[in-house]
Amino acid sequence: MLFQVEMDVNIPPGFDPEEAATLKAAEKVRFQELQKAGTWRHIWRVVGRYANLSIFDVPDNATLHELLTTLPLYPFMTVRVTPLCRHPSSAHADDR
Amino acid sequence: MLFQVEMDVNIPPGFDPEEAATLKAAEKVRFQELQKAGTWRHIWRVVGRYANLSIFDVPDNATLHELLTTLPLYPFMTVRVTPLCRHPSSAHADDR
Amino acid sequence: MLFQVEMDVNIPPGFDPEEAATLKAAEKVRFQELQKAGTWRHIWRVVGRYANLSIFDVPDNATLHELLTTLPLYPFMTVRVTPLCRHPSSAHADDR
Amino acid sequence: MLFQVEMDVNIPPGFDPEEAATLKAAEKVRFQELQKAGTWRHIWRVVGRYANLSIFDVPDNATLHELLTTLPLYPFMTVRVTPLCRHPSSAHADDR
Amino acid sequence: MLFQVEMDVNIPPGFDPEEAATLKAAEKVRFQELQKAGTWRHIWRVVGRYANLSIFDVPDNATLHELLTTLPLYPFMTVRVTPLCRHPSSAHADDR
Amino acid sequence: MLFQVEMDVNIPPGFDPEEAATLKAAEKVRFQELQKAGTWRHIWRVVGRYANLSIFDVPDNATLHELLTTLPLYPFMTVRVTPLCRHPSSAHADDR
Amino acid sequence: MLFQVEMDVNIPPGFDPEEAATLKAAEKVRFQELQKAGTWRHIWRVVGRYANLSIFDVPDNATLHELLTTLPLYPFMTVRVTPLCRHPSSAHADDR
Amino acid sequence: MLFQVEMDVNIPPGFDPEEAATLKAAEKVRFQELQKAGTWRHIWRVVGRYANLSIFDVPDNATLHELLTTLPLYPFMTVRVTPLCRHPSSAHADDR
Amino acid sequence: MLFQVEMDVNIPPGFDPEEAATLKAAEKVRFQELQKAGTWRHIWRVVGRYANLSIFDVPDNATLHELLTTLPLYPFMTVRVTPLCRHPSSAHADDR
Amino acid sequence: MLFQVEMDVNIPPGFDPEEAATLKAAEKVRFQELQKAGTWRHIWRVVGRYANLSIFDVPDNATLHELLTTLPLYPFMTVRVTPLCRHPSSAHADDR
Repeated sequence: MLFQVEMDVNIPPGFDPEEAATLKAAEKVRFQELQKAGTWRHIWRVVGRYANLSIFDVPDNATLHELLTTLPLYPFMTVRVTPLCRHPSSAHADDR
Repeated sequence: MLFQVEMDVNIPPGFDPEEAATLKAAEKVRFQELQKAGTWRHIWRVVGRYANLSIFDVPDNATLHELLTTLPLYPFMTVRVTPLCRHPSSAHADDR
Repeated sequence: MLFQVEMDVNIPPGFDPEEAATLKAAEKVRFQELQKAGTWRHIWRVVGRYANLSIFDVPDNATLHELLTTLPLYPFMTVRVTPLCRHPSSAHADDR
Repeated sequence: MLFQVEMDVNIPPGFDPEEAATLKAAEKVRFQELQKAGTWRHIWRVVGRYANLSIFDVPDNATLHELLTTLPLYPFMTVRVTPLCRHPSSAHADDR
Repeated sequence: MLFQVEMDVNIPPGFDPEEAATLKAAEKVRFQELQKAGTWRHIWRVVGRYANLSIFDVPDNATLHELLTTLPLYPFMTVRVTPLCRHPSSAHADDR
Repeated sequence: MLFQVEMDVNIPPGFDPEEAATLKAAEKVRFQELQKAGTWRHIWRVVGRYANLSIFDVPDNATLHELLTTLPLYPFMTVRVTPLCRHPSSAHADDR
Repeated sequence: MLFQVEMDVNIPPGFDPEEAATLKAAEKVRFQELQKAGTWRHIWRVVGRYANLSIFDVPDNATLHELLTTLPLYPFMTVRVTPLCRHPSSAHADDR
Repeated sequence: MLFQVEMDVNIPPGFDPEEAATLKAAEKVRFQELQKAGTWRHIWRVVGRYANLSIFDVPDNATLHELLTTLPLYPFMTVRVTPLCRHPSSAHADDR
Repeated sequence: MLFQVEMDVNIPPGFDPEEAATLKAAEKVRFQELQKAGTWRHIWRVVGRYANLSIFDVPDNATLHELLTTLPLYPFMTVRVTPLCRHPSSAHADDR
Repeated sequence: MLFQVEMDVNIPPGFDPEEAATLKAAEKVRFQELQKAGTWRHIWRVVGRYANLSIFDVPDNATLHELLTTLPLYPFMTVRVTPLCRHPSSAHADDR
């Protein structure tokens, strides 16, 4: 089941740079686990902003909530979730 | 080069149903040409709305404008375009 | 899987009253089928507006989209969908 | 008498974690008292946000104000209240 | 139980003036019944707009919904409802 | 001459509680003076928010500005002012 | 007593041009009466829009409401009213 | 050439009161120079807010930018600029 | 003196296509006169919308208002005007 | 390929003035490199705001993202990006 997720990241100016680097590294590791598992299907940068546009493939709403709220950078994110479904015209098997 | 495009379609209530059907059929044909060509990379329905969320892969801005404004249903669409780029963490070759 | 759905209904002033009555009757029949099936879990009127606030329980996003867009009054609705999940503090079995 | 209440919780980053834990525990206790009493009829998590969507059943506006403003986490909440009433089509006794 | 209700009235330019006059007269009669009954506690014009700001005193949400949606001009209104309660500092008995 | 005034009060979390209590007490005293004088005609709590909805009766705009900006809690308020006037249908002498 | 009033005028495309010309001529006559009387103190065009920004000097709110709602073009206007008062730094006698 | 300028002033609660008083005094001096020069044509208080509504008469855009951004309180202001021009109906020589 | 002007064009669906073509041709002629004169300094299409982003160079506000409101397509436009001035860092002579 | 970029700069009041001066100087150097290279085609000040309106000419989205996010003042900027393309009526070779 697919969801579009937009994440804006806002780390406040005075935040300790080392701790920020640690969180970003942990975020990358977690992202890559979820990407390999096929859960975090797509991710793109939004030009000019510290933000991403992502497509998640999850079995249900509760799994998506659990995944998002345990991301290392979650406390600094503003998150918008939009439920999607397969478009009848699509010929791509994985746009389900 | 990737762009997210959101399209909301609003055909007014009194519009001739046959003409609407003709336009929708033409839209589907055009969509499938562009999907086969790899230009209209992804399309999803937004749950509960007559709208889609799409990812386009085009050589430049002018091509995207030309493609969108010649869609058969374009006169009935509200279109929002967001430029995207590859996310540094992505391991997927086609999230370029 | 639970979703909050808000529906604002706006039938234009000049619309044929008989056809409106037919659509409203069909809407009520469809609502009651879905309520009996346990799919349309809750419905409330929003005070002062021709609108409702509902909770749907569906197996997936695609089912919800299909249910909403085939409602008899759908062409006159503005629909907002919010994915929900069980709250960890809830003691109610059906707030899942 | 029913009200929809949306609560967004925003504890600032620098807030003492122990005090936060104490407040969250007190909030849970209070929630469960009100749930058992039938006052806090439903609660759901909003996917991807530290927020809930709730339905309250109270005798009057003043009681609702008193309940909300004395919640342990109230100073960190943004609250939106929407008055609801029974939908004429509903067959459920408790959607009153 | 008190509610603030804002009503913006928008009768479309082409609407039959006689029918409009009939509806406005019926609205005034209904308003005065409700004012005498103590239900429509206050009404004021908003300067420069065809709108009013009102205070209703009703036993519950359902009564307010019934009153508002059966007003003769309701089909032309945009209505916003805000639940109120007594302010602890007030010395006026009827600001309850 | 009547005005609707909405006041949202937002005292920042770290503010000294004693000073806050002093300001609130002074606010209450000032409110009661103005209520007795008939200037602050009505006040109600907005359910779920630290805010009030008030009706002022003042001789002119300048008096209202002076009254509002010298309230003890004014530095913590967001204020919205709407000019009102008597509604032609009202039978209440004091809705002037 | 001073008020800023913004008026956006929107005459629908299909409206009879002769009737529009008659209304505009009547509006100009009325404006000039009010300008000579010192009531409509200032008027300016907003660049690029069919709109004006005006300053009214009236004895009270009710007079302003009466003046605005009887303007010949009022049925085509969107009006926003902002109460003003003398600025303590001003040295101009008529910025009262 | 005329411009409407709205200025909202927001000095943060913790700001040194002496420095604030110095800045306000400097602002007043600068305002009066510009008022005498005929550049700052009008200024009014917006009722209930620490804000003003002003009319500037300047030879060009660059002069206006220079004047506004060198005001002593500019770092605490939110500024909105609207270009104006003479209204064809105005009989006042200085509404140019 | 420079201004950014955004123009959204919205010709209603039922509008006579021949008259629309005549207006568009007249608009193009007028645009090219103003471009040759150096007044309409730049024009670009906004991708995916029937809209343009333009830079005008005019002697004053009144000239800009006159130019915009006499464009053949003006009755179908929504126009937003932003006053600009030279940036101190720019090395380009014509970004004045 | 052209993009409009709006940048609002907001350096917080307490920020070290020397560090701010260093960043602004570095920003100016970087701007002038990009202006000479023809990448940062135009820049203008927005009257009354610490903001600019710019036109970038870049080979693709990724280059624009890289350029913007490495600007010395980027951490203090709010950035909005709008893709543009050549307008069919333009006679200017460089409005491509």
